[in-house]
Amino acid sequence: MLTDFVLQRLDAATEEGAEGVEPVYWRLYRVLQDAIFGGSLEAGTQLPPSRQLARELGISRNTVIRAYEQLSAEGYVRGGVGSGTFVADTNPDRLVGSPYNNKSRASPRENRAGMFLPRATFSQRGMALTDGAGAGTRQWGAFMPGVPDVRMFPLRIWSRLSNRALRRPSPELLSYAVGPGYAPLRTALASYLRTARGVRCTPEQLIVTFGIHTCLQLIAYMLCDAGERVWMEDPGYWGVRSVLRAAGVDVLPAPVDHEGLQFARHVRQTQTGQQPVPRLIVVSPSHQYPLGAVMSLARRRQLLEYARSARCWVVEDDYDSEFRYGSRPLPSLQGLDEAGRVLYMGTFSKVLFPGLRMGYLVVPEDLAEGFTLGLAEIYRGGQYLLQAVMADFIAEGHFVSHIRRMRLVYAERRQCLLDAIRSRFGDAFPIQDEAVGLHTALRLPTGCDDGAISAAALADGVITRPLSGYYINRRHRQPGLVLGYGHVDPKDIPAHFDTVARAIARHI
Amino acid sequence: MLTDFVLQRLDAATEEGAEGVEPVYWRLYRVLQDAIFGGSLEAGTQLPPSRQLARELGISRNTVIRAYEQLSAEGYVRGGVGSGTFVADTNPDRLVGSPYNNKSRASPRENRAGMFLPRATFSQRGMALTDGAGAGTRQWGAFMPGVPDVRMFPLRIWSRLSNRALRRPSPELLSYAVGPGYAPLRTALASYLRTARGVRCTPEQLIVTFGIHTCLQLIAYMLCDAGERVWMEDPGYWGVRSVLRAAGVDVLPAPVDHEGLQFARHVRQTQTGQQPVPRLIVVSPSHQYPLGAVMSLARRRQLLEYARSARCWVVEDDYDSEFRYGSRPLPSLQGLDEAGRVLYMGTFSKVLFPGLRMGYLVVPEDLAEGFTLGLAEIYRGGQYLLQAVMADFIAEGHFVSHIRRMRLVYAERRQCLLDAIRSRFGDAFPIQDEAVGLHTALRLPTGCDDGAISAAALADGVITRPLSGYYINRRHRQPGLVLGYGHVDPKDIPAHFDTVARAIARHI
Repeated sequence: MLTDFVLQRLDAATEEGAEGVEPVYWRLYRVLQDAIFGGSLEAGTQLPPSRQLARELGISRNTVIRAYEQLSAEGYVRGGVGSGTFVADTNPDRLVGSPYNNKSRASPRENRAGMFLPRATFSQRGMALTDGAGAGTRQWGAFMPGVPDVRMFPLRIWSRLSNRALRRPSPELLSYAVGPGYAPLRTALASYLRTARGVRCTPEQLIVTFGIHTCLQLIAYMLCDAGERVWMEDPGYWGVRSVLRAAGVDVLPAPVDHEGLQFARHVRQTQTGQQPVPRLIVVSPSHQYPLGAVMSLARRRQLLEYARSARCWVVEDDYDSEFRYGSRPLPSLQGLDEAGRVLYMGTFSKVLFPGLRMGYLVVPEDLAEGFTLGLAEIYRGGQYLLQAVMADFIAEGHFVSHIRRMRLVYAERRQCLLDAIRSRFGDAFPIQDEAVGLHTALRLPTGCDDGAISAAALADGVITRPLSGYYINRRHRQPGLVLGYGHVDPKDIPAHFDTVARAIARHI
Repeated sequence: MLTDFVLQRLDAATEEGAEGVEPVYWRLYRVLQDAIFGGSLEAGTQLPPSRQLARELGISRNTVIRAYEQLSAEGYVRGGVGSGTFVADTNPDRLVGSPYNNKSRASPRENRAGMFLPRATFSQRGMALTDGAGAGTRQWGAFMPGVPDVRMFPLRIWSRLSNRALRRPSPELLSYAVGPGYAPLRTALASYLRTARGVRCTPEQLIVTFGIHTCLQLIAYMLCDAGERVWMEDPGYWGVRSVLRAAGVDVLPAPVDHEGLQFARHVRQTQTGQQPVPRLIVVSPSHQYPLGAVMSLARRRQLLEYARSARCWVVEDDYDSEFRYGSRPLPSLQGLDEAGRVLYMGTFSKVLFPGLRMGYLVVPEDLAEGFTLGLAEIYRGGQYLLQAVMADFIAEGHFVSHIRRMRLVYAERRQCLLDAIRSRFGDAFPIQDEAVGLHTALRLPTGCDDGAISAAALADGVITRPLSGYYINRRHRQPGLVLGYGHVDPKDIPAHFDTVARAIARHI
């Protein structure tokens, strides 16, 4: 089929090419190059072996090799001796772009001129990572979701504790780490998690990491082999998708409703043999990201029961549930688990500040030793000096009082944003908000282009995230805007939301 | 074949089992369990589907399923519906052990009694990570290799710079990181690397990470797909092996001589099509770990020429070459590279302290943007507050003066250890030491058990690492002891070495 396609176009190229002065390899190169740019040859397609294509086209093998080499030198294809030649992903705005970068799409010709990245150099998984990049290039400013008000972190207290730790640290605090984390930090954390989050754990079950990403990567390595199946929420956190895909597991999205993850259909399919039992099911039950649902107790029980019977693992991402306004925070899913099938991930990014890059993992007792070894092999352990400061910060009560203080601050800002939305739009657009966390999701009418709205708001200086960008399954996509209020001064919220509202009005 | 094996033993079990009171599923379970323990069924072997085995043994399928379930519940096999049943790795002292843990090998029965880890829960790659674990459970004390004297780090200066950074940090320093690292740190580092290490780079080529492990993992993700080939030094750093294997690449060891990596044979095999061109070649040219060779200029040129022509990448691990005694440090391999094929990895673990967990990567210009995106997706960026302190530490000259001071300290300790070795053994054992770094390798006669010697020394309180543990290819294995002198008080070196010498004498 490819041969027919090339033959037709080779003939056409010969006709176009004036007196046929172009050598055959060059014509072949141009035909393939155009096919790659035009999209007729998709990224990842394997080209026929040079010997085969030469025979089928009735030209010499060296001619084909030369054309392939030219394509390879320019980054249109990749491959090596014996490993086959594959069409590279040559769409440059996908490499630097993302749903959030809001770069305008260039025409193929402009793409070609603007192609500055050597696409053929990156691996397929490297390209998948950068093509689907979720991390934005701006991480501070209204209404960037998920960012706490770092300006209110008690740096003076932190500085004092830090100086104390630096005064006469034992060499072990400065050297290579041994074990799953600094013991006093694990003790302080276990006690906090038991009381505040209903997590059933001992310090021995805690592993201290560089954040949720590292927690999930370690889980994927330790519990899943490449090609094994993982279910995740759709829409969901882009970081979960990126980390899991890079780790080679097969990510299957599952839809989300007001009770959280809808896994019933997937479960039936595993029972009828239509799909394999997953190794992991990754959920954010306390505050679904980004839609905000709190998983119902019925759904929690179903999930735990399925995990128990199918012997798969549930990964609970509890990233910001400390900030629950009005009622007491729901206890963790882990606390309901009688069968030891839940791995609980937490982070200091939301409750303290993201630049700490510190998170933690609670694993079932019998996994702790293996995870500790894996941590040392993959990351060479942690930052015990920093962990010692954190241990004191928690043990001396600063952690809990900071959370308590910020809960009031964020509650006011949330109300302020909800008021701004209502005063501008009334009840025209549903707001998805369960009074938890640092962000809210504003739904927009089906069919409207939330990417364009987000871009327009950004042009006027306000960051938002288009809801559609959080979906893996295109058929589930719903437009909307995810708005973070945590780090925005309440007095500025109405004006910033007016900017967003103008962008919405222009696009509806 | 397996069926015959099982049939024979089932009969035997029936005869042994008195009146045949044991149910069939239990006998089948025992036969398979014994075969797994005895090693007749190796880890990773796939058991026949229950339907097939039932038919071949002439028993009911439910009986086979029940036996498999029992084996699975006890961790002897792993697998799920539709994905096949595989023999798990049930050797517990490999899970918690390593060449350095020096646990005595228990008999199979003791293994069985001592089996406390649910082996069937971990993935194959998770088990490979823990089975081959290289990180020891003690990281401080004579003669743990690769550990600097963290007690001499100028904590007071660090504390002062840290307080200054904490006084009024911009929110961006505390929030999620954007980009490849804090810009002033990349500027300071680029300038240092150009001057001190002959690295040709601009700040735009620098990516700040959590250390060498993270550098290498990012490289493996961005440049290699699962199953692609990487060459590494044998013996080499266990961390390189662990990170690469977890990332799913195919690690091929290559021997090392006094000029560094011997890759000529591998190169010939790629040219004759006997093996694929590697995507990466990972080397430590300034100070081969652990043997100490400095790669010759001729070998460097050959390596760069091969990388250029084969279009593969060279990863230069330059972990401790700042400490070169006597002569000027050799410039980096990266500085010789005209073709942009070298990725240079550095760390602050040796020059400052390991607990910082900070390293950096210099990539060719055209890879920088892709690597920056990958960094954000996989790790969610870095610790800009800590990076700001480091930037000041370098910019104000403390970095270079600490290195200069420590070079004298380590030179004295190295001499002290070499003297101790010579005074004890004369020239009986070759010492592999090129006057660089923080460790030296003492070769022992072929056939002697360096693991037992290391265990004996550890029992007397002195840490050493058996050289044989650093090899991937068992046929290359040479016995010896890797001895770190960096953090050992010179007055204690002779006594500690006497302990090692006694352990050697007892085993030769």
